[in-house]
Amino acid sequence: MKITCLQENLKTSLNIVQNIIGRNLTLPILNNILVQTEGGRLKISSTNLEIGINTWSAGKIEKEGAITCPAKILTGFINSLPNKKIDLETKGETLVVRCENYKVTLKGLPAEDFPLIPKIKEPALIEIEANILRQGLAQVVQAAALSESRPEITGILFKIERNSLILAATDSFRLAEKTILDVKKEGELSHSIIIPQRTVQELIRILSEQNSSVKMVLGNNQILFEMEDIQVISRIIDGQYPDYQQIIPKSFLTQAVMERDELLNLIRIAGLFSSKINDIKISLRAGRLEILSQDPDLGENKSYLEAEIKGKEIETTFNYRYLLEGLINIGTKKVFLGMNSETSPAILKPQEAKENYLYVVMPIRLN
Amino acid sequence: MKITCLQENLKTSLNIVQNIIGRNLTLPILNNILVQTEGGRLKISSTNLEIGINTWSAGKIEKEGAITCPAKILTGFINSLPNKKIDLETKGETLVVRCENYKVTLKGLPAEDFPLIPKIKEPALIEIEANILRQGLAQVVQAAALSESRPEITGILFKIERNSLILAATDSFRLAEKTILDVKKEGELSHSIIIPQRTVQELIRILSEQNSSVKMVLGNNQILFEMEDIQVISRIIDGQYPDYQQIIPKSFLTQAVMERDELLNLIRIAGLFSSKINDIKISLRAGRLEILSQDPDLGENKSYLEAEIKGKEIETTFNYRYLLEGLINIGTKKVFLGMNSETSPAILKPQEAKENYLYVVMPIRLN
Repeated sequence: MKITCLQENLKTSLNIVQNIIGRNLTLPILNNILVQTEGGRLKISSTNLEIGINTWSAGKIEKEGAITCPAKILTGFINSLPNKKIDLETKGETLVVRCENYKVTLKGLPAEDFPLIPKIKEPALIEIEANILRQGLAQVVQAAALSESRPEITGILFKIERNSLILAATDSFRLAEKTILDVKKEGELSHSIIIPQRTVQELIRILSEQNSSVKMVLGNNQILFEMEDIQVISRIIDGQYPDYQQIIPKSFLTQAVMERDELLNLIRIAGLFSSKINDIKISLRAGRLEILSQDPDLGENKSYLEAEIKGKEIETTFNYRYLLEGLINIGTKKVFLGMNSETSPAILKPQEAKENYLYVVMPIRLN
Repeated sequence: MKITCLQENLKTSLNIVQNIIGRNLTLPILNNILVQTEGGRLKISSTNLEIGINTWSAGKIEKEGAITCPAKILTGFINSLPNKKIDLETKGETLVVRCENYKVTLKGLPAEDFPLIPKIKEPALIEIEANILRQGLAQVVQAAALSESRPEITGILFKIERNSLILAATDSFRLAEKTILDVKKEGELSHSIIIPQRTVQELIRILSEQNSSVKMVLGNNQILFEMEDIQVISRIIDGQYPDYQQIIPKSFLTQAVMERDELLNLIRIAGLFSSKINDIKISLRAGRLEILSQDPDLGENKSYLEAEIKGKEIETTFNYRYLLEGLINIGTKKVFLGMNSETSPAILKPQEAKENYLYVVMPIRLN
């Protein structure tokens, strides 16, 4: 392999693929990045066996070929070079990198030993703006379960029906759901696909640098997210996602509307004084949302906020972290809080319905 | 105690004092901040028994008094409040904090149990601009030894003579020295004072927010740095600082001048390929500084830089981290490197003599 490219392009490619690479002692090639020529361009790939990433960029190819090199050193080195022309040339099992006054010889491993990243050649299920997908994913990703005891809820549900994409995540203590309307959809079929949280985190990271649209392509137990010059391929989680619609309350005995930023700060401060189970007590009455939190060692916090309240008085205990995470994902000026009883799920959502976002949180039962 | 103050003022005071407070399990009051009234103002203090910090700010005092409260919760809580009036009131062993719609009751410990921070009532040795002192300290602080085997070099030397303040630090592998001229000095005596690295780090942090001047006052085994409304009191390290002047080379068989930023990048990249002992080989010859570094597992790096070189050819091995630390503290466009032999100390310094900074580094001996 012999190729000339710009430092800027190579740097961008490496930073797209390098994040999924951990430190693998049993299979050292998983610490490496695959560098190769393909279709007159430079192709850079990484995999952790669960997620694979490919990216292509321009280069002047003198000789076709491929090699793998340790991700950390390759990325660290290329990031530090000036934005000039870089020559990449394989010599046996090494990659020689030249850039102005720098010459580096990197030990590599043969490209043939690199795990195959599956190719998916189906038609796309949907196409969606990168920025809209990124924002939607960021609003739900944190609510997914971390424990593997119920694998299906460790992922994020992508539900495609008619012209909408519904994104949902829950760990059974809280649930986040975002509906994206007017998605460009091929075919008539509906799909429910569960995608690992790690893949979604990686997608959010990569999408934040993209302006184009993303195609979602379903393969055999694999999903492909295809952008301009970038592919993210991931395994799908097997299983049936819980029918969470039934736990979302549709009507409320108590409704409150208040300033989002003020509520966020109130809960943040109350959290400082919560006990080990992160409990804070919220009551809605007489035009006020009041919070009480107590830690036997530190002291207590009482605070309140003016709110427009409709319905009966209520007092409920929540995990303040769950409330915070929901509020952070609501970007609107005013937020709606709906409750029914001390033990039934509450809803946080933007006051504006067009946001199509909701966050359900279970109270803490103190008995 | 009952006092009203502005959130902004209290927040600033707490952030000045809180950084030295660790997590002390044997003496819990060391986790606390002392809040008291003094001379019609609000005084906030902290100590870790090695360093003590006092700071004063405006407040409307209704009732004199004092209490101590856990630093972490007090600081976290006050930082989050809106910039409005805050009422502080002691009730038994608690501090009640009120601010608009917030009311917090914090458990405290009696002020009488708080360790005494020594008072130093001597005339000042010198007075110096905060910004100049901060910059000088930042240029030397990292070179101090971390190991306690020679306690005297774990501190930073403050040498006061005539109208200058010399700051020096070394760990015997490298040495940094900064001379500050035209210091306002009282009296005729010279002084050599060794101040702990931790104190100097804290001073750098606090000075970066100050515009006024700093007075340095010597007490009995203690030193006081006095700013407007802030005092930092620290123990002094006993012992004789090594006579390091003798190891600073005064003439050079090889001299090189080059671009500081380019050299910094060259060394940073070379460091990626250095072996476990951080070794990189530097040679000066024929108008070039060349670097070679090799790691048996990763590969090798060869790079060079145009330099104005005078004197004989030379090749020497250095710890790249030491060179980097020196270079980072040199802010000028061009840097001077002087060497005499493979085994004798080299000097890095700004090309401009008026900077009054020098950095000596010992080569690595490879036999």
